[in-house]
Order: sequence, then structure tokens, then C-alpha cells
Amino acid sequence: MGAEAGRYRETAALFARAERVIPGGIYGHQSPRLLVPGAYPYFFARGAGARVWDVDGNEYLDLVCGYGPIVLGHNHPAVDAAAAREAANGRCYNGPARPFVELAERLVALTPWAAWAVFAKNGSDVCTWAVQVARAATGRTKILAAKGAYHGTHAWCAPLPGGTTPEDRAHVATYRYNDLASVDRALALHDGDVAGIIVSPFRHDAFHDQEMPAPGFLAGLRERCDARGAVLVLDDVRAGFRLSLAGSGDAMGVEPDVTCYCKALGNGYPISAALGRERLREAAMQVFFTGSYWTGPVEMAAALACLAELEASDAIAHMRRIGTRLRDGMVGQGETHGLPVHWSGPPALPFMTFRDDEGSFVRSRVFAAACAARGVYLHPHHNWFVSAALTDADVDRILDVTDAAFADVARSPEHRA
Amino acid sequence: MGAEAGRYRETAALFARAERVIPGGIYGHQSPRLLVPGAYPYFFARGAGARVWDVDGNEYLDLVCGYGPIVLGHNHPAVDAAAAREAANGRCYNGPARPFVELAERLVALTPWAAWAVFAKNGSDVCTWAVQVARAATGRTKILAAKGAYHGTHAWCAPLPGGTTPEDRAHVATYRYNDLASVDRALALHDGDVAGIIVSPFRHDAFHDQEMPAPGFLAGLRERCDARGAVLVLDDVRAGFRLSLAGSGDAMGVEPDVTCYCKALGNGYPISAALGRERLREAAMQVFFTGSYWTGPVEMAAALACLAELEASDAIAHMRRIGTRLRDGMVGQGETHGLPVHWSGPPALPFMTFRDDEGSFVRSRVFAAACAARGVYLHPHHNWFVSAALTDADVDRILDVTDAAFADVARSPEHRA
Repeated sequence: MGAEAGRYRETAALFARAERVIPGGIYGHQSPRLLVPGAYPYFFARGAGARVWDVDGNEYLDLVCGYGPIVLGHNHPAVDAAAAREAANGRCYNGPARPFVELAERLVALTPWAAWAVFAKNGSDVCTWAVQVARAATGRTKILAAKGAYHGTHAWCAPLPGGTTPEDRAHVATYRYNDLASVDRALALHDGDVAGIIVSPFRHDAFHDQEMPAPGFLAGLRERCDARGAVLVLDDVRAGFRLSLAGSGDAMGVEPDVTCYCKALGNGYPISAALGRERLREAAMQVFFTGSYWTGPVEMAAALACLAELEASDAIAHMRRIGTRLRDGMVGQGETHGLPVHWSGPPALPFMTFRDDEGSFVRSRVFAAACAARGVYLHPHHNWFVSAALTDADVDRILDVTDAAFADVARSPEHRA
Repeated sequence: MGAEAGRYRETAALFARAERVIPGGIYGHQSPRLLVPGAYPYFFARGAGARVWDVDGNEYLDLVCGYGPIVLGHNHPAVDAAAAREAANGRCYNGPARPFVELAERLVALTPWAAWAVFAKNGSDVCTWAVQVARAATGRTKILAAKGAYHGTHAWCAPLPGGTTPEDRAHVATYRYNDLASVDRALALHDGDVAGIIVSPFRHDAFHDQEMPAPGFLAGLRERCDARGAVLVLDDVRAGFRLSLAGSGDAMGVEPDVTCYCKALGNGYPISAALGRERLREAAMQVFFTGSYWTGPVEMAAALACLAELEASDAIAHMRRIGTRLRDGMVGQGETHGLPVHWSGPPALPFMTFRDDEGSFVRSRVFAAACAARGVYLHPHHNWFVSAALTDADVDRILDVTDAAFADVARSPEHRA
């Protein structure tokens, strides 16, 4: 721990215990190595609405939202009440319960092109299954995925090579996001054997500025899949239900063949889903897909309540407005402090980098640590998530903090160097 | 629906809705195609202790227990109270919470050979990760797995080929459970490239009688791994915490290098875990492993409470005694009715087949349907699960039902044919 050791004393103590009994202390996307080691809280004790509290009792306005799941705010009363009603009956049976059918009906009704839904627990579960369904439907093997895109932890797409073999990626070909010529090269290389293309609704790779889909890019993928009888899979795990209740394909003007959801679907309750077209129903039945808790009714009741609340409160419009205020405020602050920034992505899932900081993220880390020290939790390397719980007063408070954080960056040795 | 249509009217109605919006209506291990179509409840509405109620309001004594997770009984008050206390704080943060560390500490303390733990949501997550850790630790590729054993849905071990490619299994070699000579053949075939062996503590393949490990079999795997520097992975997803709090390796007298848990760990709350040896810590850090909800504190608080209750109530001894009573009763009933049975597996995870019914399961289905019609839920093709909530009075009731069910089988056209 560094200068902020006092502030993060309990985080440090708990992390020392964690390091003894957990490899790396904290693994995966929450690893402190991916944040600002020593100048960040690693462990949390409480969340409510737009706020979280770390184990030291420090309070934060939350712009990471559990890396996406928290879309209505932490511990949303309507979601928790619906889940609790279902949990009072039970949570793990020998078969599904009513919410299994009701949630599938609800998602299909929200999504004009979709005929069916399935449920699992992780984004990885559904993204991997979707590309397998593409293989089963076409009798072909190759999947095209954007270079650097994250579609889950499974070996065919894991961002680190440890424990994987070359065969795990034998049938994965890559293209560059927003580059149809690179898609065409991959299609030509595997002519006749392309089962499907997987794509996110916009480019949101960690450690990169985000990129919205270029005009014609997603439509170009759609046309190319149609021309070849290949399956277009939209990985909407990260963005789903922050841009449209019909999925981010709706927001971006493309109708995929399968959409994968997770994150915001359950407002923090563990659930993921895939929706698909009628013509893939038989293929969907051929790919083995099951898990101990995948028909659990509590998470499905939570998802039903989350969707109802998103709709009733017009949360998507609210998040767009809040995200736009954050953008306008922070972009202006950057200019004022002589620190021009890149602001990227849709308002509800924004990301900010410093213009003269490309690839190093040195200023991003100083900025993020300065925000954390003042009670705003955002991420130096990963896109942020707006929740519907953020009020205009919260935005005012966030912008006060970011203004001071920009000043810190301007004064920092990293900047002056 | 068949003769019992009235009894399962709501199941039938809900399944008709499900078939429209979910491929196959219900997928995976809960598919009605794996039960007795038309003569079984498919959808559940409530659980309490040793009992579940289907959507028609029919009550069952539960011998499937959600296919394992329910070890203390449905909606166990101490587990639910611990989870609710944690949930009042929050359920999905930007990092873990205290229960993440506390549960790792608890599991490591329970398990003499283990130095660390990690958590996920599914048995598949941890079994696949464990074999990847074996690869990362050894720099080798081949994994030996028992033919027909289920280690999850992932493509390297999925029981159905749909959507998989030959490359998915390129590095998986098979042996026969309880056959060290077959293990030696696989080892010889891949001499110098065996990363690890994965094995369940006893053979519990669906559609088969169970087999306890033959004397020396698990020790033989241990010796062979030690001699080659390979990793022994115990898939304790199904049996864990029903035979020993230190894992089924403890019950069977073998100390693996990694143990995979799921099912009973959280008494129905979605959580899985892997425990490993100190010498695998670095390898564990090299294999990417993460999921949106994998550090969720609610499920970990449930697991801590579940372990505490299992220990305090001596639940494992109770389940052994209950399972033994079921065995003695049902084996005797089979003899009385002229229907000798195979009873297999440990008392807490028993399975029963009819001796002259091998491979067809015709009598098993008649028996299971007859039990369901009388209020006992058991499975014709998959091992059963005893819960600690079963009382001696429940066993008496179950045995009344099974006696009548045996009589039904004896009278059935399938038997007389």
C-alpha cells in the first residue's frame, strides 16, 4: 500500500489474508493488478443505490456497477422484493419453476426476431454455447471473432494462454472490429466452413478506447452471414439492457440470430441468457447445455422485476442523459486542466482515456486513484457503467471529484515528466 | 401426458408454454425426456426441508435434492438467514467481500492437503479450470478421464457431440473406472505428455449402476501421478460434503492435488469451488478464471452457514444412517416382491436398478412413476441424493410408497412381458 495506506487499511489486511488462501489474492477481472495497487479498495462491505462502501467504511459513487450487473442501483427494492418472494418458496428444485417460462416469454416478447430463450449463470456459458449452436446449425466449424474482443473465459477465447492448447483455437478466425475487409479475408480463407460470426454491439475491449460500430459494419456482418447461411451471434453480455430493452442489436440497428445476455439482466443476481431465432431451435436442442443452478427461480424472478423496473422507470433514457452529463462535464474539465481526453462508447457505458497517455494509462491510474480517494469509483482500464440510480446531484458530486482529480493529474510527476 | 394427466395438469400446461419459447421446453439434465414423460412433475413451486411441491400442488419427499445441491433440506433456516444478512448489505460489487476470504480460509482449514481455494458458479467452471491448471503446471497437454464420466458441459467432456469439434477432445484420453491397466495403457500411449488425471470419488455415471472405487484404484492413480509429476484432479462436484467435510477424497482415502466442489457447498445457492495444493498456486494464477458473479458474497455466506450446519448437526453421519435404512428397506422389498435390485453407491448418494432390467430401465421408469404418483420423487436413471432433512418418519413414508411401487412393477405389463 502506498500513500493512501490509512484509507485502505482493512483492504490491505484482508488482502494479506486472501493472498494466503487464494491464488493471487483476487483473481480474474477484479484482480488489484488491473487497478491501481495500493491506492484502491479491493473489498466491499455494502452497496445501496448508486453507492458502495469498502471494508474500510469509505463511501463511493459507483461507476463500475459490479462490472455491469448493477443497472438499477445496488439492492434495488423492487428486484430484491421479487427475488425474496420467490426465495420464500425455494431456490433449487428438480426442475424449473414458473419464472423460467415467464422470463423466456418476456424476453421473446421484447425481442421481435427471437423465438426462444435459454438461461445459464455466466456470460461465458452463453457465448460458448451460441457458437456451438452455430456449428450444430450449419455443420461447419469456423467462428469469426474480433481480435482482442472478450467473449468469456473459455479456452477458445480466453485472453490469457495459460492452460489452453493450440487446438482450443483451431476453429477461431479473427477479424478487426469495424473492418469489413478483414472480415472478408477471414471468410475467404475459410470459405464454405464458416459457422458464424460473433461480435459485440460496439467495441469495448479493456485497455482500449471504445469504438461505436462504423456505419454499415454490423449490417455488413448481417449480409455476409445471410449470404453464406452463417449464424450472427451478438455478444450483448456487457451492454445488454443499458441501450435498449430489445437488446443492443436494436439500439445499433442489427438483428442477430442469437443474442447473449448476462450482467444487467438480473441487477446483480447471477443469471445469463441467450435468445435465438426459430430456425436455430433444433440446433439449440443438439448442444448439451446444463448447470446445477441454471433453472433457479430466484434469479429469474429478479430478472423479471429488473426488466419491469427498467421499462416502468424509462431507465435507459435516464442512463443516456446521466452519461451524457458525465461526458460533457468531464470532457470540459479535461480541456480546462489542459488534459484533453478521449471519451468513447455510448453514454450508459462510457470510457475515458487521456489523449497523451495512449497505451500507458499512467495518467488514467493517477486519475482513478484520485477519484477513489475522494469517493468516486471508476476504472482506469475498463469501460465504466452508468446505473439508473445515479441522480443529477450524484453527477454534480462526481464532477466535483473528477475536477479535483484532473487537477491532481495536472500536478502529478507523471504528467509533468 | 398419460394416465396421470389429471395429477400433472399444470405441469403439462406450463410445459406447453415452455416448448414455445425454450428449445425442448426444458433442456439439460432436467429435461423430461430423461425422466418418465407424462408421468412426472416437470415444474416445481415450493420446497421445505425434505419436501417439494410441484406446480399442481402435489407433495413429494425429495430423493433428488435439485440433483445434489440441497443437502440440509430445502430453504434451510440457518443458511437462508446467513444469506439474507449478507444480501441486506449487497450482492454484486466491484470486488469481493469478506465471505470470499472467510470461505477460502474455512475450506482450506477443513482440507489438510489444500493450500488455496477459488470460487465460480458451476461444476463445469471448476472442472475445466482444474484440467487447465494441470496443463499450466506441467507444460503438458493430455488429460486422462474415465470413459462415460461426466465432468461438465464443456466441449472437452460434453456427453453429446452437438456443436463440438474433434479438436475439443484432442488432448483427452480415456481409461475405464476401476481399471488401472486401462490407465496404464493411456499413460503409455501419451508417455511424457500427461498433464493430469481427473476422476470422481466413485463411479456415478447416469444410466449405470454406481461403482465404489476398487481397493487400490484411487491410490493407484495417486501413485501414477506422483511418479510422473502429473496432477490428480478429484471431481467432487456431485458427492462433495455428503461423505466428508474434508471432501470425498478424505472418505475414500486419497489426497488429490485439486478438488472440485459445487452442489452441496451452498445448499442450493449457486456456487462452486476448487481447492488445490501449494505447488499449484503459480499455475492457478496463470489460467484465466473469472465471471460476473463469482465473488458474490451472498452465496459464500450461504456456503459458510451450510458448512457450519453440516458440522454442528453431524449431518454426514445422519445421511449415512438414513441412506442405509433406505437401502435395507428397498432391497428387502425387492426380494419380497420377486424383483431383485442392484443397490449401488454410498448411502448418502444411492442408486437402485432392477436386476433383470439392465440397460433398458423399463422397470425403473415404472417404479419411478409409481413413486411420483404416491409422493416420492426419485430418478429412474440418475443416482439419488439423501438430504439431512430426511427423518426416520420420512423414511417410513418413503418405504411405504416404494413397497406399493414395487407391487406396481410386479403387476406391470413391462414386468410380466
